Amino acid sequence: MRPRSVQVTEVGMRDGFQMESRILPTERKEAIGLALIAAGVRHIEVSSFVSPAAVPQLADAAALVGRLKGKGAELSALVPNVNGARRGVAAGIDRLTVFASASETHNQKNVRRSVAESLAGMGEIGRIAADAGVPIDGSVATAFGCPFEGEVSADAVLRVVEGYAAMGADRIGLGDTTGMATPRVVEGVVTAIRARFPGLSIGLHFHNTRGIGLVNVMTGLDLGVTRYDASIGGLGGCPFAVGATGNISTEDLVYLLDELGVETGIDLPRLIGVAHDVQAAFARELPGQVMKAGPRLARAPE
Amino acid sequence: MRPRSVQVTEVGMRDGFQMESRILPTERKEAIGLALIAAGVRHIEVSSFVSPAAVPQLADAAALVGRLKGKGAELSALVPNVNGARRGVAAGIDRLTVFASASETHNQKNVRRSVAESLAGMGEIGRIAADAGVPIDGSVATAFGCPFEGEVSADAVLRVVEGYAAMGADRIGLGDTTGMATPRVVEGVVTAIRARFPGLSIGLHFHNTRGIGLVNVMTGLDLGVTRYDASIGGLGGCPFAVGATGNISTEDLVYLLDELGVETGIDLPRLIGVAHDVQAAFARELPGQVMKAGPRLARAPE
Repeated sequence: MRPRSVQVTEVGMRDGFQMESRILPTERKEAIGLALIAAGVRHIEVSSFVSPAAVPQLADAAALVGRLKGKGAELSALVPNVNGARRGVAAGIDRLTVFASASETHNQKNVRRSVAESLAGMGEIGRIAADAGVPIDGSVATAFGCPFEGEVSADAVLRVVEGYAAMGADRIGLGDTTGMATPRVVEGVVTAIRARFPGLSIGLHFHNTRGIGLVNVMTGLDLGVTRYDASIGGLGGCPFAVGATGNISTEDLVYLLDELGVETGIDLPRLIGVAHDVQAAFARELPGQVMKAGPRLARAPE
Repeated sequence: MRPRSVQVTEVGMRDGFQMESRILPTERKEAIGLALIAAGVRHIEVSSFVSPAAVPQLADAAALVGRLKGKGAELSALVPNVNGARRGVAAGIDRLTVFASASETHNQKNVRRSVAESLAGMGEIGRIAADAGVPIDGSVATAFGCPFEGEVSADAVLRVVEGYAAMGADRIGLGDTTGMATPRVVEGVVTAIRARFPGLSIGLHFHNTRGIGLVNVMTGLDLGVTRYDASIGGLGGCPFAVGATGNISTEDLVYLLDELGVETGIDLPRLIGVAHDVQAAFARELPGQVMKAGPRLARAPE
């Protein structure tokens, strides 16, 4: 059941960069993107077409897509609304990622709309994407629990997935927004979605907020899931818990997959090099572990 | 195959305290030990009967055993040699833990003896323990890899385990000294030991140096292993990689086990409280994740 190879999507340039107070110049972002591609990364969530005023860290989304397009990786970007979808398509993104939360409270706090309102806006985004021939990823936030509401039912997740299926998304992603996924919860949600939408490709986006992000990846692998998000160096925090980490680290994920014999196409030592570049760019210690300890057979000085 | 309950041994008071530059007064250690017991911890590796000159942090081993003995937890302590065994037995420890490395180079660096010399000294320790009626744990360091030699063969591990079996140890522990354990390596070593010593109880001591300590616990659970070491707050570093973490955190382990439905008898919120006490005692941020994020259903302020 465990897959022989999986697709790793690097999300640090969006999910990580947007939370840093330091704003990197576009050239620096481009260099990081090219270094990721040189390390073998083939899927990058490169930015978000949100309001530049609200998220100045990602104001150069279109320029960055222009610089990295066609350089060897599929580029996806988040689009929060119709305007963002138009901008993203015009910029030339390879995939367009829409998002909504499974929990009402989180969706309200995140985008100041109800889940129903978010889903109602998806039809027009779907048409824009279809007209441009750009495939759609549908991302479900708080898919494994909500920091405001607690447990999130499989029905609440299915309601959002149904909206994505209706708008023509060929992939969905389940987001562990605040690190509430556990093996049992992951198995329950993935099984429920497959029962209802057997043809839909499922990706998993785990956070390491409670230290078990990679344990949940193991559960995903045992369920046969073949797509995982991760962030270089573990960049990106958890906005709801001071000091807690956010995304699982891409190097730690690739290390685990390498050791399990699951192929990613990514060169771990080169990826570790990129993690150190990113750490230097933000001048703060990142939570990734393998970037500190090195690959398994790295020798200590005698 | 996955056990319904497991035994968690808290090793922070030995493995963690010995690496901190700040030396806690015995009263403070006693308070931490009592708080662990109040949280439901029933197995504590409380200190090490090493030379007080070499490890001043643990110079109060005998006094600490005296204060915590009979308070509700089984107390074990490391003994590096015959003298340490005599001191430990005299102090009243409930279990005595001997140790040697599976790899020659690590054993030389750790205790300045060959593995054969370490094992040769075990007979006398075994007699001291037997005379006092104190059971023995045999701990195998670098059981999953050596930072100096690389891969460690199952035969090298078996050689040390054989020594422990010969001296009368009823439990052995496999130490992931520098975080080189992976699911495949763990399965190989555990399977090899069980084939040769079917009656011996195996415990696993994982480090999170490369971020997959709890993934390895999952592997152990799937193999039916019922004893795990962990350190409060993840106290204890990795001496071979700057900035890398060491022991898996007890709270993170208990969180995972709770969420898997595996019983530990430990109350997670109380344990998190102890982790904060220990963090305050050493005045540095500990790597534990759940102590920052809280239990899964902890609510964020709306």
